[in-house]
Amino acid sequence: MNIKARALAGAMMAAGTVVIAGYAVGQTQEPITPIQPPKQINLGMSELGKKLFFDPRLSKSGFISCNSCHNLSMGGSDNLQTSIGDKWQQGPINSPTVLNSSLNLAQFWDGRAADLKEQAGGPIANPGEMAFSHTLAVDLLGSIPAYQREFKQVFGKDKVDIDQVTLAIAEFEKTLVTPNARFDQWLLGKQDALSKDELDGYKLFKESGCVGCHNGEAVGGNSFQKMGLVEPYKGNEKAEGRSAVTGKDADRFNYKVPTLRNVELTYPYFHDGAANTLTEAVDVMGRIQLGKKFTQDENAKIVAFLKTLTGDQPSFQLPILPPSADNTPRPTPFK
Amino acid sequence: MNIKARALAGAMMAAGTVVIAGYAVGQTQEPITPIQPPKQINLGMSELGKKLFFDPRLSKSGFISCNSCHNLSMGGSDNLQTSIGDKWQQGPINSPTVLNSSLNLAQFWDGRAADLKEQAGGPIANPGEMAFSHTLAVDLLGSIPAYQREFKQVFGKDKVDIDQVTLAIAEFEKTLVTPNARFDQWLLGKQDALSKDELDGYKLFKESGCVGCHNGEAVGGNSFQKMGLVEPYKGNEKAEGRSAVTGKDADRFNYKVPTLRNVELTYPYFHDGAANTLTEAVDVMGRIQLGKKFTQDENAKIVAFLKTLTGDQPSFQLPILPPSADNTPRPTPFK
Ligand code: HEC
Ligand code: HEC
Ligand code: HEC
Ligand code: HEC
Ligand SMILES: [Ca+2]
Ligand SMILES: [Ca+2]
Ligand SMILES: [Ca+2]
Ligand SMILES: [Mg+2]
Repeated sequence: MNIKARALAGAMMAAGTVVIAGYAVGQTQEPITPIQPPKQINLGMSELGKKLFFDPRLSKSGFISCNSCHNLSMGGSDNLQTSIGDKWQQGPINSPTVLNSSLNLAQFWDGRAADLKEQAGGPIANPGEMAFSHTLAVDLLGSIPAYQREFKQVFGKDKVDIDQVTLAIAEFEKTLVTPNARFDQWLLGKQDALSKDELDGYKLFKESGCVGCHNGEAVGGNSFQKMGLVEPYKGNEKAEGRSAVTGKDADRFNYKVPTLRNVELTYPYFHDGAANTLTEAVDVMGRIQLGKKFTQDENAKIVAFLKTLTGDQPSFQLPILPPSADNTPRPTPFK
Repeated sequence: MNIKARALAGAMMAAGTVVIAGYAVGQTQEPITPIQPPKQINLGMSELGKKLFFDPRLSKSGFISCNSCHNLSMGGSDNLQTSIGDKWQQGPINSPTVLNSSLNLAQFWDGRAADLKEQAGGPIANPGEMAFSHTLAVDLLGSIPAYQREFKQVFGKDKVDIDQVTLAIAEFEKTLVTPNARFDQWLLGKQDALSKDELDGYKLFKESGCVGCHNGEAVGGNSFQKMGLVEPYKGNEKAEGRSAVTGKDADRFNYKVPTLRNVELTYPYFHDGAANTLTEAVDVMGRIQLGKKFTQDENAKIVAFLKTLTGDQPSFQLPILPPSADNTPRPTPFK
């Protein structure tokens, strides 16, 4: 076994799966498991978090909300190569979907945030994203009577603080799971939920070794892996991946394996958004992660399978935000 | 009668109303009438229009949708002094609400668009707003299979065109009326829907002459009037108003009287967004339109009345947009 093949086998074991030949083994033994509906949601908290997720007043400009870059009408991302932040700044990296992000082992491409609560504080104060500050955000929310009341009702405290803000947003994000994909229907026994081509695609996905990294409930999200295992990745950027967090050279170009749930909706692909289509992303993955060149027909079948991973999208009423009060600080988009 | 008073009386007659003393005259004779629910909506068309209203792919950047500047979570405007357009360009004028805009005699502050259909073509191609073009928009939508099918279903034609796009958006906008405000409940006979202060405010609003211009179903939107009738308006911008459309000097500084429906939500106020609060807007109106200085108490009562004009906000599921296809042109935010 050469180093690359060993690394790959290691990746597969780390993820706790084995490559299963064919799909005749029975749906209960599959390396991918159905998405579970969200459990134990504090409804009051998540309703508050939903408003915050849509509220552009959490940005300096009053123009950018979480939903600007994680648009829940579009699969929870922005479908841009890299994001647009405050003052139209070009972001450094592709915006990952917030759908099913509660299933991730950590947040961000390099996993630098442990969980959704820790993550949610980031963008508000990031000068390249919402360009606000936690103090300003908390003061702003506290000045809006209806928010003030809702925070008090949910958290039982007189004063809004940033912990409550990030807790509420994280609670809302926990609801953003997407059950009922056709693939899950098949896993749960509906034999005719998938076409022959889609099943062939799944077989290829397993036999080729994709499931070594993309497996479990989120079909990814549960390990960090090297981008360019067999052949170096030639992306157009300077990010170095997980090593920026761990300081270890071995983690260079390691990224969190993205979920492939709803991947049909989250183009463009990879941390640098360099692949416009699934066809391209599958081709790149085959070559640089597995040393495999898929035929056009094989590629199309894998893509067909990946599109069966689109689940029920978030389904709720557009939130209505409480108006600012006379003393609520006004946004300053042009300063 | 001096010239200014004559102009005001003219304005009142043009709007077809008289100033009624007090509110004891009975709710059926009021100069403000309740908002009617939308009628004769083509549901298929308006559902399609809703998607288009939320779709940032109608902009060059892929980042700005109608809902960016007419946020239906925030009263149908952006709550900015002037809007942020493509590449963070600072817009020239305050974004008016799209709520109840179907009731306007014409669209835009200067009325340069006859109706919602005519209006909807504007922002897509406006270099300072969405910076796209009608041809690009139509090509883009036509490349998205689910849109292609939906357009065909609604309009019965094989090819998407810009007329269908603006018709659908306008049909959706017709649904954006806001019935059931507390003031309307009172108009319809619910005597205790308003507090004593709110009723006093309404009495002042009528007796002072505000209803001369702000009347009817939308409490405005049905005439052009001079901004600065009694005393010149000292705004911080260069717009000249309706004369830009008619070429007539007499129309200089004439603007469409804005609806006061949901005015609690559509701060900041005036075409230049110069007034941050209702207190300030009411004070300015009193002085420069009527030559009246309200006491703090009077002002507060009028503001209390204005807040009773907030109606039921749009209530629908967040629309889910169909994904782009491999050949759908990608956005170019940084070019
Ligand atoms: C200006 C664009 C922008 C805004 C605004 C924004 N995000 Fe993000 N978000 C990103 C980008 C880009 C990343 C990836 C950053 C990285 O991995 O280094 C990200 C990462 C995330 C992740 C991690 C997902 C994963 O799989 O690792 C979550 C969760 C998230 N954002 C939620 C939010 C929330 C909540 C808000 C609002 C409080 C928000 N974002 C605001 C662009 C944005
Ligand atoms: C050794 C681990 C590993 C293997 C094997 C692997 N992947 Fe990946 N996959 C990753 C990592 C890591 C990324 C993120 C890389 C980046 O963005 O730089 C990724 C990204 C992707 C993406 C883009 C997702 C997005 O939202 O950007 C797709 C699609 C994908 N993989 C499909 C596949 C397919 C199909 C196979 C098999 C042919 C495969 N992967 C094999 C680790 C792996
Ligand atoms: C970049 C900000 C921006 C975007 C995007 C935008 N608008 Fe506007 N909208 C404005 C501004 C500013 C005005 C006022 C312009 C004027 O009166 O000269 C306006 C005016 C309007 C009006 C007239 C309302 C009235 O009372 O006169 C309607 C209706 C409207 N927009 C609908 C739309 C639709 C539909 C879209 C998308 C196709 C859209 N807008 C996109 C900022 C925007
Ligand atoms: C002679 C006509 C006229 C009279 C009388 C009048 N208004 Fe206005 N009102 C206007 C016009 C025109 C505008 C828009 C001016 C602009 O934006 O430049 C306006 C704007 C407003 C606004 C801001 C709305 C917005 O969304 O920006 C408020 C609030 C308002 N008026 C309240 C009142 C009150 C209260 C009175 C009585 C004290 C009153 N108006 C009297 C014509 C009038
Ligand atoms: Ca992506
Ligand atoms: Ca416009
Ligand atoms: Ca306004
Ligand atoms: Mg972020």
